Amino acid sequence: MIELDFSKSADGLIPAIAQDYQTGEILMMAYINKESWEYTLATNHATYYSRSRKKLWKKGETSGNVQKIKEILVDCDEDTVIFKVEQIGGVACHTGHRSCFYRKVDGENLTEIAPVIIDPEKMY
Amino acid sequence: MIELDFSKSADGLIPAIAQDYQTGEILMMAYINKESWEYTLATNHATYYSRSRKKLWKKGETSGNVQKIKEILVDCDEDTVIFKVEQIGGVACHTGHRSCFYRKVDGENLTEIAPVIIDPEKMY
Repeated sequence: MIELDFSKSADGLIPAIAQDYQTGEILMMAYINKESWEYTLATNHATYYSRSRKKLWKKGETSGNVQKIKEILVDCDEDTVIFKVEQIGGVACHTGHRSCFYRKVDGENLTEIAPVIIDPEKMY
Repeated sequence: MIELDFSKSADGLIPAIAQDYQTGEILMMAYINKESWEYTLATNHATYYSRSRKKLWKKGETSGNVQKIKEILVDCDEDTVIFKVEQIGGVACHTGHRSCFYRKVDGENLTEIAPVIIDPEKMY
């Protein structure tokens, strides 16, 4: 198994960037620990570590919106990865937007640049 | 100024993903603190925090390979940003590759998927 360097952050977590494998759109960023890395490789579904719940986060387990791994890129320092994924259900963000990055800096404001696709009340 | 949430990580740093503003290619991921965030907004050049040198990292200050900010996206939790950039000099990675993510997971190995563009000895 490919070894990553989890040693550099205070909490032993490293960033995993989920990117649409076809369009290149960045869908979300979340953290992984060693267990979620192993689980991702074993299942071919993006699996993170939830800092708020302090446990393995099998993305889409509740909503069905899993992220199928198409390719994984590793950076020069082996402490960040890109999950190139197929986003089942079309929505990665708990807000109901396709991407968590649905706002841009617009002077002193954040302006929405993408619509809500699914009512977040209906996602879980 | 747009406020970000630097409180959730143990070290007060949050990820900034540099993405080519035209192609969507992810060039690198580095960390920012409040000072680098303010500096980025003030100068319109991507500015990070170097964990190894423990100081502000004005990307490209030595090599000339600055990243001109074209747009900044902020995520739902306001604790991760995307810098959509124009990469001056064409190379973001200290290895001389355009992107730090020049290798993919290929079974038990990492396979290079992109060439060295500039001899890293000549970058600095």
